[in-house]
Order: sequence, then C-alpha cells, then structure tokens
Amino acid sequence: MQAQVRDVARLAGVSSGTVSNALNHPEKVSPATRERVQQAIAELGFVPNIAARQLRRGTNDSIGMVVLDIANPFFTAVARGVEERLAGVGRPLVMAHSGQDHEREKAYLDLFAEQRLSGVLVTPAGQVLDRLRRLRDRGTAIVVVDRKTGAREFSSVSVDDTLGGTLATQHLLDVGRRRIAFLGGPERLTQIKHRLGAARRVVEQHGSGAVWHVDSPTLDVEAGRVGAAALLDLPAARRPDAIFAANDLIALGVLQTLTLAGVRVPDDIAIVGYDDNEFAAAAAIPLTSVRQPAVEMGAAATGRLLEVIEDPHAKVEHIVLSPELVVRRSTVA
Amino acid sequence: MQAQVRDVARLAGVSSGTVSNALNHPEKVSPATRERVQQAIAELGFVPNIAARQLRRGTNDSIGMVVLDIANPFFTAVARGVEERLAGVGRPLVMAHSGQDHEREKAYLDLFAEQRLSGVLVTPAGQVLDRLRRLRDRGTAIVVVDRKTGAREFSSVSVDDTLGGTLATQHLLDVGRRRIAFLGGPERLTQIKHRLGAARRVVEQHGSGAVWHVDSPTLDVEAGRVGAAALLDLPAARRPDAIFAANDLIALGVLQTLTLAGVRVPDDIAIVGYDDNEFAAAAAIPLTSVRQPAVEMGAAATGRLLEVIEDPHAKVEHIVLSPELVVRRSTVA
Repeated sequence: MQAQVRDVARLAGVSSGTVSNALNHPEKVSPATRERVQQAIAELGFVPNIAARQLRRGTNDSIGMVVLDIANPFFTAVARGVEERLAGVGRPLVMAHSGQDHEREKAYLDLFAEQRLSGVLVTPAGQVLDRLRRLRDRGTAIVVVDRKTGAREFSSVSVDDTLGGTLATQHLLDVGRRRIAFLGGPERLTQIKHRLGAARRVVEQHGSGAVWHVDSPTLDVEAGRVGAAALLDLPAARRPDAIFAANDLIALGVLQTLTLAGVRVPDDIAIVGYDDNEFAAAAAIPLTSVRQPAVEMGAAATGRLLEVIEDPHAKVEHIVLSPELVVRRSTVA
Repeated sequence: MQAQVRDVARLAGVSSGTVSNALNHPEKVSPATRERVQQAIAELGFVPNIAARQLRRGTNDSIGMVVLDIANPFFTAVARGVEERLAGVGRPLVMAHSGQDHEREKAYLDLFAEQRLSGVLVTPAGQVLDRLRRLRDRGTAIVVVDRKTGAREFSSVSVDDTLGGTLATQHLLDVGRRRIAFLGGPERLTQIKHRLGAARRVVEQHGSGAVWHVDSPTLDVEAGRVGAAALLDLPAARRPDAIFAANDLIALGVLQTLTLAGVRVPDDIAIVGYDDNEFAAAAAIPLTSVRQPAVEMGAAATGRLLEVIEDPHAKVEHIVLSPELVVRRSTVA
C-alpha cells in the first residue's frame, strides 16, 4: 500500500491542503508545520506523485533528448554537454535512443509529447516536422541538434561542415598530398555533401591533385575496412596518397586495414578523420581529425532550449559552431 | 491552447466518457464511434495526457535505465540488448546517465520513483539500497545489472569475472608469457578484485611466472597510457612480457604507448583487454580480449525485469553469464 496525502496529513496532524501547500508552496506554511509534514513523509515513505503535480501544472521539469546513435562517441559527447548545462539549473535529462530508426524516433517523440516535457532536443533521423510541430503546439520547447530540420520554425545548433571539409583538405595539400580519396556516404546526407563538396572545391582552387569519392552505405568501422581494402586493390600507381574519412569510426577501420596490410601511415597513405572522438586520439597511430565541438554543441543547444522554454515566442535562431583541425601522427610523421 | 477531451467529444458528437472509453477500453465502443473519435483527435491534434492515465493506473509502461557510464561502449552495448528485448513487447526505454556520480544516481532514481515507471534497470555507482527498496515498495520492479547490489532482495544479471580472469591468464601462459602485469584499479571494485584474484591463482597453480598489479584510479584510455609508460621505465630485465588490461579502454591506451615507443606487440609485450568492445576489434593491432556478453546481459536483465513486473513476488534470481576469450593479433602474431 502506498502512502497517500491523507495519511501524511493524519500523521502530521494537519489538513491535506496543508500537506499540499508544504510540498508546492512551502512559503505559505510555518517552519514548524513544514517540519512536521516532512517528518511524516519520511516516516511513511511517501513520495509526491509527479503525475498529480504535472496534471495541475501542464508540463514537467525534465528535458528529453532523442539521441541518433548512442554507440557513436560523438553523440555521447553531445549528451555530456547537455548534462553539464542542465546540472547548473537542476533539471533532469531523460534520453531516448532512435538508433537512426525513424519509427522508433516517432514513438519516442510521441512519448515525450504525452509526458509533457518542458523541452526536447532532437537529432532527427527522418521526416519529423509534423511531430515537432505537435510537440511545440502542446507547449514543449524544441531545439534541433546537428541538423537544421524545419529551419524556419525551430532553432538549431550545428557545426560548419564546409569549413571542416576545407580544413581537412587544405591540410592534406599542405603536407604534400595530391591524390585524396574521400571515404564515406551516402552523399544525400547533408554533412557528407558539405564535407565532400568543400574537399572538391579546395583541390580545384589549388589547381593540382584530385579528389574521388568512395561511397559507403554506413558510417562505421566496417565501412572503413571495406573502403580501404577496395583502395588497396588498385594498382599502386592509382592508389591515393591520402584518405579523408567522413568520420573517425571510418578512419579507425582504414587505419587497421592499412596497418595489417603493411602500408605505412602516414608515409604511404595519410589519414584524416572527422569528429575527433576519444578513440581518434587513442589510436595506435593517433589520428589527425577535424574536431567537432560536440560538448559545446550540447551545451549551446541546451542554453537555447532553456531560452525557448522561458519565452516560447523567442525568435528562431541558428547557431553554427566552427570545427578545428587537430593534427596528429596519421598525417605528420 | 491544447485540445481537451471535451473538445474531442464535442467535435465527434459523443460524450467525454465515450472518448475516454475509445482511448482506454476500445472494445467497449462501436467501430463507427471509435473512428469518429479518432478523426476528431487527428483534427484537433489532441494527444491523450499520459499524466492523467498514469494517475488512474498507478504506474506507466516505460522502463527506466540508469546507465553508469554512457561513454563506455560496454554500457551502450548493454543498452542495445535492453532495447532489442523491449522492442518485442512494445515498451519504451528512457535512459538516465549517472556518470558514476552517486548524487546524480540518487536524483534519477527519485525521478523514476516519481514517474512511477513499471520497471527500472540500474548499475549502481554507490550505496542505493534504500532507494531501490523505496522504488520497489511503490510498485516498480527492479533488476540490478553488472553488479549484485542487495542480492537478497533484488534479482541481478552479471558476468563471471573470476572465469574471465582465468581465461585471460591461462591464454597468456599458453602462449609462453610468464611476467604478467595486471593494469587497472582500484582493487576495491569487485570486478577488479575477481579478475586480478583469478590471474594470481592461475599463475600460482601453474607453478612458474608472476603477476603484479599496476593500480590506476580510473579505468580509461589515459590510465592505460600512464600505466604503460611506467612499465617502459623499468629496466628491460624487469619489464613484463604481457599486460592484462582491466578493460579495453586501458588496453587501447597501452597499445598506443607501446606502439609509439617502438615496442613490438605481441613479440615484446602481449596485450589482453577485457569487454571486447567495438574498438578492441578495430584497433590497428586487433586486441585479444575477454568478451563480456553485454548485449545478452541487457536482454537477460530485461527478460527478468518483465517477469518481476508480472509477478512482484517472484523469487529473487541471480543470472551469471560466462565471458569468453576472443584471440586476436595482440597476443598471437
């Protein structure tokens, strides 16, 4: 049997209304009464029912986050930034994992809508505009992370992928590389398009060298292994002297395949990754990588979300953060 | 303005009670009426308020999971097992991250208690018995993951660390190693104690060789780098010929430090990791590792949790899964 407000009231010798005030409007209750109520609560193991409170108030304090891929350290770093920012304001974070599955994503957005969370951060996997609108119309603040879905209606925080692609490619040219394979896909992803587009533009402006695209259906370690193996099958004269991997997971797969094949990194082939996750720096040959400010992105998105919670009519804003190049041994011996 | 049940009722031309039945007891309502209600709901963008439903029912369908360290791929693999098992029964999973911080862990357990979730999976960071009891007394099922906290009261799923330590050490002896450094700590962690204890026992029974413990305050990549650097400072005759790392993150840090110092792996020093996470297999020299059945652990814990939800008086059970050794190039050239 769970203790009810009336049990607490009986034990404390006060009315149920006083118990409710002690919980929700402590300033209306004398310190002595508050203490009696608290003792009764402790004795009975009573926990105020959040469902009852929510029903009165309409929304609850929690922030929800729909994470695209929990196995990718980039997204766990984003989550760390969110947590750090929320710790300062004492709001809890509940996470749901879409796993890039649009059906699951929709189900979790519906769950968050039902729970009437005060704010939701989401990195969309599919077409979710209708659901984001519904959440907003029910009083939940929304900020889009690492994308610009519904840019006219929803604020977002993302990273400048064109700049990232430019930094990586210019660095490869600077260390004398001319035959650059860009490994990763599919190209319909905005991020891939921007990074690869920048690489092509930089090489074109440079006037010598070439970039070609080795497509992949996924963006994981195995895609790196498969792509690198395909490149090693080419006649030596047609091999690249550098691989620009679309993310660090791919770069790790590339590094492994080249190492096991006896190819020297960076002497024979240089590697640049993207994200600068913990495992890029931890690789046997530490990876040069384009550092995405993931923790900062999580913090900035959360800061913006808290503003939209305060003022639902706040202007739509798009914060674009700049990546930076971190040079390590996979490009410079 | 949010649509209310009465708005739906008006538009559908039925009573509020009929709307409520259509949502909660559809079998009581004719198909034609159900369709009218559903059309009105779609038109108004009405979402049934989970807070109202919970209040009637006492608990909600969601399962909560308090994750110890979201940046450790071992725990994201456990979460994958949980998700896969829950997908089969259509229950959502909400995750909270304690980050090994006992205060945050307590706050999230309190949040889950307030939300009256039907079940919670937790890998405790600190002393949480009182909170687990309170959750249970309020009708929430509990299963402890990767630990045996409160073993007399709560079911658990864990992995046999003594067997894991035995497999790793026996393998190192089998490939001719005799001077084994066990890297990782602190030793008060049950898992460290069992793995290291098993290593000492196996070497003792073998009758030749030695195991020594290189302690570390944390279990991350940096601990591996620092520990390996300390071992390389020893005179050559006193160096180990094998390192048994307490987890894969440490093993990756060791591999990097040895590689950059020109030490040959496995010729000069062999490395065994623990967990067999995605990055162990992806290392430039793929790591031999003790595979923890993380996905299976998540699935088994969830299966047990669903049983306890069905029958809160089900007997306390402890499921202990067996790890297995995965041999790769870091021990066998």
